[in-house]
Amino acid sequence: MRILVLGGDGFCGWPTSLHLSALGHDVAIVDNLSRRNIDNELEAQSLTPISPMGIRLAAWRDLGEREITFHRFDVAQDYDRLLGLVTEWRPDVVVHFAEQRSAPYSMKSSRNKRYTVSNNLGATNSLLAAIVESGQDIHVVHLGTMGVYGYGTAGMKIPEGYLRVKLETDDGREIEQEILYPPNPGSIYHMTKTQDQLLFAYYAKNDGLRITDLHQGIVWGTQTDQTSRDERLINRFDYDGDYGTVLNRFLMQAAVRYPLTVHGTGGQTRAFIHLQDSVRCIALAIANPPAAGERVRILNQMTETHRVRDLAAMISDITGATVANVPNPRKEDPENELFVENRQLLDLGLEPITLQTGLLQEVTDIAQKYAERCVLDKIPCQSLWRADLAAGDAAVGVAAGAVGVAARAVGSAGAAADREASASR
Amino acid sequence: MRILVLGGDGFCGWPTSLHLSALGHDVAIVDNLSRRNIDNELEAQSLTPISPMGIRLAAWRDLGEREITFHRFDVAQDYDRLLGLVTEWRPDVVVHFAEQRSAPYSMKSSRNKRYTVSNNLGATNSLLAAIVESGQDIHVVHLGTMGVYGYGTAGMKIPEGYLRVKLETDDGREIEQEILYPPNPGSIYHMTKTQDQLLFAYYAKNDGLRITDLHQGIVWGTQTDQTSRDERLINRFDYDGDYGTVLNRFLMQAAVRYPLTVHGTGGQTRAFIHLQDSVRCIALAIANPPAAGERVRILNQMTETHRVRDLAAMISDITGATVANVPNPRKEDPENELFVENRQLLDLGLEPITLQTGLLQEVTDIAQKYAERCVLDKIPCQSLWRADLAAGDAAVGVAAGAVGVAARAVGSAGAAADREASASR
Repeated sequence: MRILVLGGDGFCGWPTSLHLSALGHDVAIVDNLSRRNIDNELEAQSLTPISPMGIRLAAWRDLGEREITFHRFDVAQDYDRLLGLVTEWRPDVVVHFAEQRSAPYSMKSSRNKRYTVSNNLGATNSLLAAIVESGQDIHVVHLGTMGVYGYGTAGMKIPEGYLRVKLETDDGREIEQEILYPPNPGSIYHMTKTQDQLLFAYYAKNDGLRITDLHQGIVWGTQTDQTSRDERLINRFDYDGDYGTVLNRFLMQAAVRYPLTVHGTGGQTRAFIHLQDSVRCIALAIANPPAAGERVRILNQMTETHRVRDLAAMISDITGATVANVPNPRKEDPENELFVENRQLLDLGLEPITLQTGLLQEVTDIAQKYAERCVLDKIPCQSLWRADLAAGDAAVGVAAGAVGVAARAVGSAGAAADREASASR
Repeated sequence: MRILVLGGDGFCGWPTSLHLSALGHDVAIVDNLSRRNIDNELEAQSLTPISPMGIRLAAWRDLGEREITFHRFDVAQDYDRLLGLVTEWRPDVVVHFAEQRSAPYSMKSSRNKRYTVSNNLGATNSLLAAIVESGQDIHVVHLGTMGVYGYGTAGMKIPEGYLRVKLETDDGREIEQEILYPPNPGSIYHMTKTQDQLLFAYYAKNDGLRITDLHQGIVWGTQTDQTSRDERLINRFDYDGDYGTVLNRFLMQAAVRYPLTVHGTGGQTRAFIHLQDSVRCIALAIANPPAAGERVRILNQMTETHRVRDLAAMISDITGATVANVPNPRKEDPENELFVENRQLLDLGLEPITLQTGLLQEVTDIAQKYAERCVLDKIPCQSLWRADLAAGDAAVGVAAGAVGVAARAVGSAGAAADREASASR
């Protein structure tokens, strides 16, 4: 099949592109390099030394794999190029990752809120409008988020996208209806994904577009079978306060002997999936498209749930790191349960990699291996959900000071640790 | 109070601004004149001779009324000006009309879909972000639409925004929850209003913003007590295929002896409200704000429902016009019931103007009075919801030809009638 990957330079987009290429598909990538540009803006870099796109694609060719083409433009802004590509290259599938995907980044300022809304909705709407305008039958596979559900489940397993409810009619009858799960997003970023759902539902209904929306948990792990074949193919690993997800940040903190910063009590339960499983799920979704006229197919792309404090304990066990509870910069419940239905992808054949089995490899192959590239003062979460909330990890400054000596042991990171410790006192 | 009206040059925005000014509020208008610019693009003009904003405001001053100030900029694009105005002028209330409000216009092309999404969501998100950034306590009153509900009610009265549903928990208990009414929008325009709801819910939850969302029916009538005081204050009347709502189009067709074009069987039931009642509702909403931390207050701003074919019959009775059934360009059910809860505004004191009592005045004071300004070939609905649907009113071309002689009787419109008749044969 011909598969267009929008956002194919990013953390999920790049390994997905390689995975699909290795499966024998013709892959073309569209990306405006926004994620690398945001690295520049935040003065934070991937822990792993990612190569420029030209080097990445050359490395893939050098391995004797299929040619992947690359188109650098903005999906949200440059509609004519998008339409031209869809019309001329005629993809069978478009995988849509072309969205700003950090919740803390989306909350940093009004500018960030406005960018996240206009970029994410602009990209999704442009893609769907272009497919309608092209008149082609194209399956859209979109990366949504478990965060569309919110994290309060009132004793119910979160279903895969649709919820069966009972309503009372005016004449007293009770009827059942299946509705899109009532959204309860926790950030502007998550909110854009709930708005994406309305775009998908509308275009599926009005234009018969075939769409799969994958509500993904927090992705952990850095490499896949393909990205680990050559260091020039290495995937990004974000540990900074904005783009680093909780697990990566813990791994990094452990590697540089920084205390693991748990927000509040760490009672937040989150859903997780390994990157390798994530790319497999996307291939499974592509192989099992909805029919034209069918409603949007929604799958929960996650394999296990954990409380944040249990994750910290797991990593502390492996590495000996200490744990520091810091104020939570997010506006959320301190403790929540989370039960998630994920039968559909398991039924399609997914065999999950568990944290228990995969975590040690992340510690040794990524976090410890590249620890000296870590800039410690990028670790704290500085983005506040509301101006009146306390900054997340800044409070750990004193604690970081206490581990200054240990941090120095990992080399160049030591100086940064001292800077961080003084800056936040 | 200080009230900022975003989109204060438009069909609802202008009479709202005057109504609030007459009530003794300090009013400032923001508008980028997009509605007048779209008139230029569509080569269609208001039937009524609307004055430029400068003349409008001078006329209001000449009547001895309070000064209204005007700021010409784009709310979706020019964030710095919006924030500056909110910060410096310190409004107590912002009434938000700054959205593209035509369903057919939103469906005309990919460009129109993209403009409607980016303008409407950009305006709403910028406003909410600016209020948060300003740190001020401002009540936002937004004009939503009955169209967020969709038009299938399964024997249930549409509640005001929130729906009580029953869910079954995993251990077999039944729990009740109140959720935002599951949206089922019928166009890209309507979809943006369902996405607006998610923005409002999020900012109310995260930032404690006080927001009222008025889900308005189809507005009919042209003038209010204020706009009728001086012809320079006259409000717009749209009869074209994109911006003219069903009732205005029927009135216009009757005035120029054009058959009333009923889409399909005319079995669509719609909710209506007179413009004078609409501006009163906005004043009532302003006088009864939600508390900080309260969820978004949603009111259904409509006073009666009618089937389209019954409206046509009502106007035919008054004017003697004939009725022509034409193919429906929209993708919708041919017949639907509609029962709407609207107690809240009635309880706040609204006394509705009914179609039965107000319609004749529209026929004589607006449609007949300005009939010679009508350009007949702007009447047909040309925007298709899907490429494979038939164009709406074009099929009536032959019928229009048959009334050519009658149309000539209303003067300059006659030539246009002939053009229309030949063009669509």
